Order: sequence, then C-alpha cells, then structure tokens
Amino acid sequence: MTQIVAPTHPFDAAVELSSDEGSADAFRGHTSPAYANMVGPFGGITAATLLQAVLQHPDRLGDPLSLTVNFAGPIADGEFTVSARPARTNRSTQHWNIELTQDGVVATTATAVFGVRRETWTSTEIEAPAAPVFDDVAAQTFPDFIAWARNYELRFVEGAVPSPEDHTASTDGTSGGQPSSTSTLWIRDNPPRPLDFPGLAALCDVFYPRAFLRLGRYLPAGTVSLTVYFHADATTLAAQADDAVLGTARAQRFGNGYFDQSGEIWGRDGVLLATTHQLVYFKA
Amino acid sequence: MTQIVAPTHPFDAAVELSSDEGSADAFRGHTSPAYANMVGPFGGITAATLLQAVLQHPDRLGDPLSLTVNFAGPIADGEFTVSARPARTNRSTQHWNIELTQDGVVATTATAVFGVRRETWTSTEIEAPAAPVFDDVAAQTFPDFIAWARNYELRFVEGAVPSPEDHTASTDGTSGGQPSSTSTLWIRDNPPRPLDFPGLAALCDVFYPRAFLRLGRYLPAGTVSLTVYFHADATTLAAQADDAVLGTARAQRFGNGYFDQSGEIWGRDGVLLATTHQLVYFKA
Repeated sequence: MTQIVAPTHPFDAAVELSSDEGSADAFRGHTSPAYANMVGPFGGITAATLLQAVLQHPDRLGDPLSLTVNFAGPIADGEFTVSARPARTNRSTQHWNIELTQDGVVATTATAVFGVRRETWTSTEIEAPAAPVFDDVAAQTFPDFIAWARNYELRFVEGAVPSPEDHTASTDGTSGGQPSSTSTLWIRDNPPRPLDFPGLAALCDVFYPRAFLRLGRYLPAGTVSLTVYFHADATTLAAQADDAVLGTARAQRFGNGYFDQSGEIWGRDGVLLATTHQLVYFKA
Repeated sequence: MTQIVAPTHPFDAAVELSSDEGSADAFRGHTSPAYANMVGPFGGITAATLLQAVLQHPDRLGDPLSLTVNFAGPIADGEFTVSARPARTNRSTQHWNIELTQDGVVATTATAVFGVRRETWTSTEIEAPAAPVFDDVAAQTFPDFIAWARNYELRFVEGAVPSPEDHTASTDGTSGGQPSSTSTLWIRDNPPRPLDFPGLAALCDVFYPRAFLRLGRYLPAGTVSLTVYFHADATTLAAQADDAVLGTARAQRFGNGYFDQSGEIWGRDGVLLATTHQLVYFKA
C-alpha cells in the first residue's frame, strides 16, 4: 500500500509546538530558517507561534478575540520554550498570559483574549481600499536577506518596499521618500495555505516598517508591540480557503525613535478579517 | 505659621498606590467612588492605576511607550493589589507584566513597554479633526449613573452620547442611530489637572461605547482590551499644562459580540499625544 502524505507547509513547521510533559502550560518550539528576518525570526511567525500555544492548550475556551505581543528581546536561532497560562476564565471569555523564553531569559511576552462568539448586530464601518484584482498586480521580490518574504506572494497595489539601492533624491532631501506611508497589497502564502488564526496573526505583521517608505530607504527598525483584533470567526476563516487577502497599513506618527502603524486584513467578498496596530522602533 | 496645602485632585486620590512592604513589585490601592462606572470602575482609571504602579516601581526605566490593559473580570468596590514586574530590561527599553487582583483573583492584566527616547526624524502623518475652540462648544452632562464623567468636562463637537431616553425612530429602524460612529470632543479634567502619563492613559478611555452612537441607545458594553501608544514624551506632556485636549474616536467593525475602536488624543498646537485602540464587548 502506498501512503500519500502531504508535505507539511513551512508555516505549520515553523509554528509547531510540542507539549512539555512537566506542565500543561509549557511548550517547546524551534526557530525556522524559512521565516528568518534580518535579525531573528519574522515577528508575524512569533505572534503566530504564541497564539498556537493557546490554541493547543487543553483548557482553551473559544477562539481568539485579541492578541498583543511585545517583542522584548532578540530570539536566537534554535529552541525556545513557550508558556501559556490562563490568567482568568469567565463563562464566555478567557484571558491568557504568554511568554517565550530561551535558556530562562524572556524574549517575548504576550496577552490574548479568547472567547465564545454569538450573533449580534453587524456593521463594517470602514471600507476596503480600491485595488485591481490579484491576477492583475505584479508580485514583488524582496531582497534575499529577508527570508520570510519568500513564504508569501506579495503583490503591492501601492507603497511597495523601496529597493535597498534606491537613493534617488526626493524633494524633501530624503532618498526616494514618499509623502504617504500607506501600503496596500495582495498577500498569499507561498505555497498557498488555508487561512487559520495563526496564519491571520502572521499576516498582520507583513507590512514592512513604514519609515522605509516615508524615507525611501532601509534603516534599523523593529516592532516593539503588536496588537491584533480578530473580527473573523472560525467559519469566516474557513470560507477564505487559500485565497489571497488584501492588506493595507499606514503610520500615524513618527518621532523620538518610535512610530505607530495601523492596518487591516480584508478577505473574500470584502469581509474585514482583522484590524492590527503596532508600535515600531526606528533609527533615522 | 500657616501652611497652605493644595487639596488632592480626585484623580490622584484614585490612582494612589502604597508600596507593599513584602515586595518591590507589589502595591495596594483602593477603588474610588468618584471614578465609578455603571459596573465597577471607569476603565481609564484602572489603566492609569496600572501604569502608576510601573511609574512608582524603583526599577523603572524611562517613560511609557505602550500599554495594553485586558479587563478580565469585574473589580469590586474596595481594596486591590497591583503587581508590576519587569519581564526584561534592555539598554533603553523595559517590558512589564502587570496584574490587578482582589482576594487573589485576577481582575485585570496588562503589559507595558517603557523606554528612554532620543531625538529622530519626526512626522505626524494624520491630521487633527476640525473643531471649534473649546470655549465655543457646550459642555455635555452625562447621566448621574456614570459617576466618572463628572470628573471631566466633555464638550462634544460631534457624536455626543445619546440620551438614555432617546428612542426616536431612525431610518434604519434603530432608535436615533447614526451612520457614523465618530465622536470628537474637547476633554478637560474637572477640576483642571496638569497632564501626566496616567492622566493621558485615562483620557484614552473617555470615548463611550461606539455602539451606543450607531444604535442610538445605551446597551450592555464594556472594554475587553485597551492599547495606548504614547507619542508624547515628558517634556511635551508638561507643555500641555492643564489645557483641554481634543479627542476623537471611531469604530471599524461591529459583529459577533465585539467591536473595535481607534482614537487619538491631540494637544496644544496640534501635537499628537497618544493613539489608542480597544476591543469592546457589546450585546445588541
């Protein structure tokens, strides 16, 4: 008998956690070279891994409502431990404290709220940005040193990442800078992968640092704190299958070493899957 | 000799914490009737109190950069304990885990990032909403059962809180509902109080639930998770003195029992002091 085994998607390999036999709250994981960023792992894969720990926890109640991840220090290549502890469980909501450590040193902290959803009045007040269909937008290749980007097909409608070699002078004296920090892009896992909660959390961090766009060049930058509000429930996620999603993000203020960014992930038929915010360190 | 002692502002009394002699990470506080909400305390005063614990901590490094507060369960009238523990301290940033408990039961969890700021390129990409000057806008009185609102002078430019008795039919069949969830208002502590970080954190939660505005009526609602990104440093805050600030907030999506809200707090000369986001439970 021949068994056909589907190869594991690189994303699933990257967020894979094994239970620690000593405690229901402890999990063991390993960084994945496929999702490496310039320094340490892609923040989105770390966020997805921390969410995965809660999803695998035997006491988990419901689906993710919100997730905040604080990138406290670098994650070295290799093994790590994730602890996920329910701080409080209510009738329909549950609050989690999560921590990623290496050799006992905290690298990432997070909190998550999970809950059982019920039907209510619904209204999406914001609108998806106008965009040509996926097939009509060219894919952009990121520089080789951004490994994680090879796991996504990124098709920019506006605000593509500047070339690391782009140093043409702009009117404000910066190198190829733009007056707007907005990027809008189609995003699909490469190879395609059905959307789930860890996948959606990771998508919320695919927006490269907005300071690159405003100043038209690469510069030192890294997310300090990332928040995701999940609007999609499990049924809505399942309906996305492995379609591309439309993401859009923009900064609000840059100054004194930090800027904030807000974004949205839109799915099939214009459904808002998640809204996301982050505070980002930068040097310029 | 006659000593003139300025009376303590109700806000300072509400966020007052005493150190627990057993641990540098533990503080004792007490709910304040002046900042009571319909159920438990005003979320903004809880956020301010948790931030205050870090500000008072002997190991604190720098000023607040971000704060996320998860409202895990009700806070009963009376005493509470706040624990604030540095999870990781870097050269210029520090990551905090914070918890409010009553009788050993977790009521609120939070994380905060503090840091030492340095000068960089600055740009505020968003604009403050148009608004008449403070003196030209009428103050709104909230219903008596919202005690905390009496500690603020709230002058709505748009999107004032509906009357609890407002049940006039609107075109979409709801009672006095509005097509937009945006509220813009001048806000000043009453009596006036010089702005500081706890004061700014509290201001980020003065926006009543956006579902009230869309549906034109009061309904069960409460913040589940609140995030504040501090753009102002200590010097900028000090320059605000006790002036009114301009706040604006709007929802993005309502559905399946939750909606998200984003807002900004603008100060003197159009400086962006904070951006803020929250996920809110509602029943409708």
